[in-house]
Amino acid sequence: MTTVEVTASKCYQVEIGRGLLPLLGEKVAGLGKANKVCIVSDSNVWPLYGAAADLSLKMAGLDTCSFVFPAGEESKSGATYLELLQFLADSRLSRQDIIVALGGGVVGDLAGFAAATYLRGIRFVQVPTTLLAAVDSSVGGKTAIDLPAGKNLAGAFCQPSLVLCDLDCLDSLPEDTFRDGCAEIIKTAILFDEALFMELVRDGLGFDRERVIARCVEHKRNIVNADEYDRGQRNLLNLGHTIGHAVEALSEYGLSHGQCVAIGTAIAGRACANLGICDYGVSARIQWLLRQFGLPLYTHFSAAMLATAALSDKKRSGSTVNLIIPLAIGNCAIRPTPVEELENFIQAGL
Amino acid sequence: MTTVEVTASKCYQVEIGRGLLPLLGEKVAGLGKANKVCIVSDSNVWPLYGAAADLSLKMAGLDTCSFVFPAGEESKSGATYLELLQFLADSRLSRQDIIVALGGGVVGDLAGFAAATYLRGIRFVQVPTTLLAAVDSSVGGKTAIDLPAGKNLAGAFCQPSLVLCDLDCLDSLPEDTFRDGCAEIIKTAILFDEALFMELVRDGLGFDRERVIARCVEHKRNIVNADEYDRGQRNLLNLGHTIGHAVEALSEYGLSHGQCVAIGTAIAGRACANLGICDYGVSARIQWLLRQFGLPLYTHFSAAMLATAALSDKKRSGSTVNLIIPLAIGNCAIRPTPVEELENFIQAGL
Repeated sequence: MTTVEVTASKCYQVEIGRGLLPLLGEKVAGLGKANKVCIVSDSNVWPLYGAAADLSLKMAGLDTCSFVFPAGEESKSGATYLELLQFLADSRLSRQDIIVALGGGVVGDLAGFAAATYLRGIRFVQVPTTLLAAVDSSVGGKTAIDLPAGKNLAGAFCQPSLVLCDLDCLDSLPEDTFRDGCAEIIKTAILFDEALFMELVRDGLGFDRERVIARCVEHKRNIVNADEYDRGQRNLLNLGHTIGHAVEALSEYGLSHGQCVAIGTAIAGRACANLGICDYGVSARIQWLLRQFGLPLYTHFSAAMLATAALSDKKRSGSTVNLIIPLAIGNCAIRPTPVEELENFIQAGL
Repeated sequence: MTTVEVTASKCYQVEIGRGLLPLLGEKVAGLGKANKVCIVSDSNVWPLYGAAADLSLKMAGLDTCSFVFPAGEESKSGATYLELLQFLADSRLSRQDIIVALGGGVVGDLAGFAAATYLRGIRFVQVPTTLLAAVDSSVGGKTAIDLPAGKNLAGAFCQPSLVLCDLDCLDSLPEDTFRDGCAEIIKTAILFDEALFMELVRDGLGFDRERVIARCVEHKRNIVNADEYDRGQRNLLNLGHTIGHAVEALSEYGLSHGQCVAIGTAIAGRACANLGICDYGVSARIQWLLRQFGLPLYTHFSAAMLATAALSDKKRSGSTVNLIIPLAIGNCAIRPTPVEELENFIQAGL
């Protein structure tokens, strides 16, 4: 097992290894003071791991209840959020009690936001069951719901009390879902870590789960420690996301988050090469690796459509949008770009 | 004008005086960086002060939009909250932009919670237009919405960037609404300030607005500075509220918050006297002053009904409930009480 410690506004551990889910109860009980735990999960994950999580919590002497919603991005809505809040109130969870988010990014974001706001904040534990949640969304305290106007437009910064990443859960992932997580791993390598990039080139989908996940979590931890509230360098983590979220919205969530991040990253790489911001080699290496992992590189949406969709995204800061620019593998920069130049940038990378 | 400075997780000023609303734009512009301001108000307040607020902001060079909802506690709901979030997104407010809460407690709580969570948090300014909001809810950063299960069950701790209390706005208050605010002033005096209590005895409803409001804000500021997140002594501010919220819920919000707080405070005082916790004189003085201000002292709901309603309230901490006990005028204590003793306590004070 590998442990990574995050020291943001709250200090907590990210534990990564095999056989951890049966230890959930013991570890949650170890956080102290809780009487009751609400497991939040979705219709994909609950049938696979719900019983094990529930049993483990009960064996540790905790009272449990569970809220299971239909899997999918559509559930990350205001309506599900209000239902969950009402369920917590009906279940009489008190300020001492704890929410366990058992699932992928949608579960973690939604359960985390409910935890951040129920009774003005109770504790929560992330148990990521997808690769994407393990390497990215379960760590760092960004919680959110989507609004009709766009993804993640409401939420809170709220750190979990513990992240328990049981690698056994990742074994059951459909291949496409696994590849989704790989897009965020590749993003992390492009941002911070050429050695990791080379390891992914060498090992492909057979990469060492525990080591690579821990490496990604360490990089994210470093950024979160330095800029928890996303006012500066945490923006780097949006590599591929400004354009990716636009693809995601335009596809009406028909494409997965990982696929869209891959497309967004590839567009950013090609645009930078074509505009002389980075070498063509950088863009070529990025595209090669994404393709090796079976991820898409192109979209049929026009630059005008993508720019419009991106500008309704929350990364906008007044009249500029922060683009993340790959300068080399392992070295990216934040470039504030006038909103009227965004379409040209995208056009250069289509 | 009197200025009180709050130094919690965010440092900000509470300005209390006459003629302040026309200065709103200048002061909001002085906070820096904002392009756009969304004024949130209700159907009572907007017709009175909306135009003046909007004009002042526009004169200061700020772009404005406004979200006005039907006045009343029913609007402090998940549904209105989601509508407001969507309105902010449709109006393309960015992270730099600002919400102005123009109204009483419902407006401030709802607008504050939206500000705390839209884009994971943007700035907001409180412009309280009721006495209750001026002396209590606009200061201290508790924001919330109600759930079907109870009042204020979801929310966030989020401090405003400025509180602008224009005493001119209080002149238009219906007398009952003004009396509501007096209940929180009397509560503050019982908790912390016998001299203020005596001043209220002497002056009745004719008390010096600016001085008394500033005094209440100072007391609240001291508590918030010491315990922003309500883990200890901030609990004191719940004097009269645990039982008061139960009355409020049972009356289906037919009674106002201030009336219910008055009833809750009177019940707590009588219970303490009857149980030998304080002198009968303390309870008698409390009841005398509440009555002088035209506030109610009794409820027809039974102790069993009140206890049940109170226990679905969020002040519960596992198997105990924190009751605030008046020991003397200006000196109260927090008493953790087993939930099964609550009904007896209430019965002693009916």
